[in-house]
Amino acid sequence: MCRWLAYSGSPVRIEDLIYRPEHSLIDQSLHSQLGAETTNGDGFGIGWYGVGETPGVFHSVEPAWNDRNLRDLAAHIESPLVFAHIRASSGSPVQQTNCHPFRHGRWLWMHNGVIRDFHEVKRDLVLAVDPSLYPSIEGSTDSEVFFFLALTLSLEDDPPAAVEAAVGLIDEIGRRHGVEHPIQMTVATSDGASVWAFRYSSERQSRSLFYSTDVPTLRLLHPELEVVQTLSEESRLIVSEPLRDLPGVWNEVPESSYGVVREGEDDLRPFRPSAPSRSVRVPVSV
Amino acid sequence: MCRWLAYSGSPVRIEDLIYRPEHSLIDQSLHSQLGAETTNGDGFGIGWYGVGETPGVFHSVEPAWNDRNLRDLAAHIESPLVFAHIRASSGSPVQQTNCHPFRHGRWLWMHNGVIRDFHEVKRDLVLAVDPSLYPSIEGSTDSEVFFFLALTLSLEDDPPAAVEAAVGLIDEIGRRHGVEHPIQMTVATSDGASVWAFRYSSERQSRSLFYSTDVPTLRLLHPELEVVQTLSEESRLIVSEPLRDLPGVWNEVPESSYGVVREGEDDLRPFRPSAPSRSVRVPVSV
Amino acid sequence: MCRWLAYSGSPVRIEDLIYRPEHSLIDQSLHSQLGAETTNGDGFGIGWYGVGETPGVFHSVEPAWNDRNLRDLAAHIESPLVFAHIRASSGSPVQQTNCHPFRHGRWLWMHNGVIRDFHEVKRDLVLAVDPSLYPSIEGSTDSEVFFFLALTLSLEDDPPAAVEAAVGLIDEIGRRHGVEHPIQMTVATSDGASVWAFRYSSERQSRSLFYSTDVPTLRLLHPELEVVQTLSEESRLIVSEPLRDLPGVWNEVPESSYGVVREGEDDLRPFRPSAPSRSVRVPVSV
Amino acid sequence: MCRWLAYSGSPVRIEDLIYRPEHSLIDQSLHSQLGAETTNGDGFGIGWYGVGETPGVFHSVEPAWNDRNLRDLAAHIESPLVFAHIRASSGSPVQQTNCHPFRHGRWLWMHNGVIRDFHEVKRDLVLAVDPSLYPSIEGSTDSEVFFFLALTLSLEDDPPAAVEAAVGLIDEIGRRHGVEHPIQMTVATSDGASVWAFRYSSERQSRSLFYSTDVPTLRLLHPELEVVQTLSEESRLIVSEPLRDLPGVWNEVPESSYGVVREGEDDLRPFRPSAPSRSVRVPVSV
Repeated sequence: MCRWLAYSGSPVRIEDLIYRPEHSLIDQSLHSQLGAETTNGDGFGIGWYGVGETPGVFHSVEPAWNDRNLRDLAAHIESPLVFAHIRASSGSPVQQTNCHPFRHGRWLWMHNGVIRDFHEVKRDLVLAVDPSLYPSIEGSTDSEVFFFLALTLSLEDDPPAAVEAAVGLIDEIGRRHGVEHPIQMTVATSDGASVWAFRYSSERQSRSLFYSTDVPTLRLLHPELEVVQTLSEESRLIVSEPLRDLPGVWNEVPESSYGVVREGEDDLRPFRPSAPSRSVRVPVSV
Repeated sequence: MCRWLAYSGSPVRIEDLIYRPEHSLIDQSLHSQLGAETTNGDGFGIGWYGVGETPGVFHSVEPAWNDRNLRDLAAHIESPLVFAHIRASSGSPVQQTNCHPFRHGRWLWMHNGVIRDFHEVKRDLVLAVDPSLYPSIEGSTDSEVFFFLALTLSLEDDPPAAVEAAVGLIDEIGRRHGVEHPIQMTVATSDGASVWAFRYSSERQSRSLFYSTDVPTLRLLHPELEVVQTLSEESRLIVSEPLRDLPGVWNEVPESSYGVVREGEDDLRPFRPSAPSRSVRVPVSV
Repeated sequence: MCRWLAYSGSPVRIEDLIYRPEHSLIDQSLHSQLGAETTNGDGFGIGWYGVGETPGVFHSVEPAWNDRNLRDLAAHIESPLVFAHIRASSGSPVQQTNCHPFRHGRWLWMHNGVIRDFHEVKRDLVLAVDPSLYPSIEGSTDSEVFFFLALTLSLEDDPPAAVEAAVGLIDEIGRRHGVEHPIQMTVATSDGASVWAFRYSSERQSRSLFYSTDVPTLRLLHPELEVVQTLSEESRLIVSEPLRDLPGVWNEVPESSYGVVREGEDDLRPFRPSAPSRSVRVPVSV
Repeated sequence: MCRWLAYSGSPVRIEDLIYRPEHSLIDQSLHSQLGAETTNGDGFGIGWYGVGETPGVFHSVEPAWNDRNLRDLAAHIESPLVFAHIRASSGSPVQQTNCHPFRHGRWLWMHNGVIRDFHEVKRDLVLAVDPSLYPSIEGSTDSEVFFFLALTLSLEDDPPAAVEAAVGLIDEIGRRHGVEHPIQMTVATSDGASVWAFRYSSERQSRSLFYSTDVPTLRLLHPELEVVQTLSEESRLIVSEPLRDLPGVWNEVPESSYGVVREGEDDLRPFRPSAPSRSVRVPVSV
């Protein structure tokens, strides 16, 4: 399992997101309180939108708490849309190609959770990935295969529907292999304009997920927080674990739900996985 | 492309094989003369038989010429059967899971060369891997998929037949995708008792491969070489590029041939790839 | 702070020492109970005597719990004298040259603890290192400077006296800089024949240190432990934290003491630091 | 020895400097033509001014030609003042703290060349570093000690005078130790506003160094080069080896000279090393 953070709003230095707050993501890499593991030391990654057509990505296999490059980059890169992820491997090797966030074109993707019995179901899941996308899979994690299933199922056109279809397919293939609860997940994805965040698990006991209260309310509640005074009203954080312990700041994303953060109205809706109908190439050998 | 070395014989320190000789493998990592690239700096690996049921393996993504751990391990490990490989990536990421030699149970495998247009044919090749072996693929190289095809085609029972079948399959699937010369290779594999070394390419212009003259002859030819005096008569080196420039020491493995090094008689035979008949699960979608 | 283990006795595979036992050293890298930190993920090292004049050393900056090379080497190297160390950095960079055990000729050295306010006293300590040894310092830790002070003060001739002198010097130079408690330490060192283990701190509240009960007693106490039945009677473990929770197995090294493990009688004696007299070159500028 | 590049001018993406040009710095990491070694694969670094008070720095020990993070950062960071350096180690370990450019506050520093017999003279040189700066030395290279000598000798006030004094000191201490030609160097340093570049060696046969012709002339000479049309007139590159082979583009910095690139007039002057008078703390033991 892992910990992650997604930010959208006024341009900020990445260090203000991942190092500065009490119980920051980097602090969580050593002392997570809500994660399945207390230590998340099996690599990390950041993704950000700014210079260039695609988002920038930096992956490393060193523990985040002591990585000098991460500290330096975080202090010298500013962005209005940032993903950060710290990993606790559930088995696959610790290597850069297994670090989140994953990127495809303009899209970023990160995942906390697990596709259960991945060794059993991996071949069938990979077979369901569009053959034209297949060669772009670089690592060996469940999370990246999950991303490529969502891309196969039109993530770029309708993210919620694509993730619902991918999760439906994972649930279906898992159950066909006798896996009781095939998936456990919180997921964030973005195209650089909106951020979608999903919370779901087959057993309906999903990893924690929180989003920050809107900035105008935060200003009323916490006039002592300087940083909040300068952020735009649209700024939002979504986190797998609250950063500061402040009353009124963090709202839980409800079980089996997803949220959208974008310019204009944000949104929170039910998440209803359903396997795609047969237009998807499913493995013939099954 | 890459450079490699396989040794079988009297127990030696690994450093005597890879650091000591003039134009040693480590020297070749910086200044290869016969390789497709002069620099082979994209990771390396060693494998050796000794303590334990399986062979030991050490992989690193640092260039071999400056790796302190390699130097230390090579000076402190002794073995009668050693594989060493330095990598020049033909595209796939530099990570430990992409370093040779690959291991499966008692077996080691290393490859110099390329499956051409691997992005195009990878999915079909991977589909031909036995589903029970599929989850053990850890990296993303052509060479590892090649190993798993050979394992699927009974490498452990009849290595030459399995490699001929795997290469036949790669040739066939490649041509079906319009690849003119699907494979270029020298390969070494071992079960800890014998070493098999193969030289082949679809275009019949294969990477170089050499084996050392038998030890009694070497003693006569080069009484000045101390190390040769103490080696057992069965000791042999197989290399992608000669180590020392000594008359009479190196014999070229002929085009489209393979050799076996083992206790008793060594052997050199023609290599005749042929795709397996349909008992192998081939991808239905093709 | 860190965790470490020293073994001397019948040849064993390193994995039997660092992976197998309950609450093994590798387990302690994630979940230390007695350490100053629960996570020791800032690099690790092993040292062992066997093939070659000097001991072998393997250092890595990845966390030990997930390092594939460590797992492989530990399974394929056997030795009668093994050091293993997992690091939690107290500030200096995570790099191989800062990983324990340090080596000089036949000698290994590892340290758990800290030279306090090292930034303040480093220059004076380094100046006290013999100029002929100075160029061999490769990293930037307090622990390595401590090793070189001990070497300067004749570690190779009389280890207890050299460590007492080095600690006396550190105490003296620290106090001259206004440091209240200049040193906190457990240290192990070996020449390949004996192992010396020291426990001391300026404030007399030293990090924990334990040694295993003699093998004949262990056999009587725990006939169920298979491994103990096959070990030689001289075999011993010294650890910063007990491995298994078994009654009668672990004895605490008393405060301000050191032990010697060697062929014949082991020994436990008081440790009495005292700064060397002026034969040592001390920094003139102080 | 190494290869480096310094850029000052219109903000550009770092990839346009180090990947795009023919015979780019990254290409030189594999195939240097003028360097002492053809391969510069022992780590690299980039430094840039932009977001934040200090320059950003990214160091890595992987070879530059295959580093995925470098490629990504170079594509997503834009800056008006960039340093880039690829290293071929002359002996000291390959680790991030030994990668150039080195940073101190607002200052960057990189070096191609060597302080000869560094093992012999290191202690005396380090003793000449201001004790308040001494604890900030993090690595073990001659280049970083050289930087700290220059800082000790007022680099921040008068860069040319400080470098002349540091080189004078190195020459003097080296000769006292019997070193015939104590230093070989090209050096670049910057405070974020100006760039100073030095070319010197004790034997007056210094490593190559080139600066680009002024932009208006370049536009006249090479109207076909698109990038030149959009650069500001003040933009300049200084390189250890020319990037493109274009007539009229590259001017050699003369032997024993230094140049300044800044807003307004650039400048080229003689470089005259002279050891500092005794106000500097020199090692008493010498």
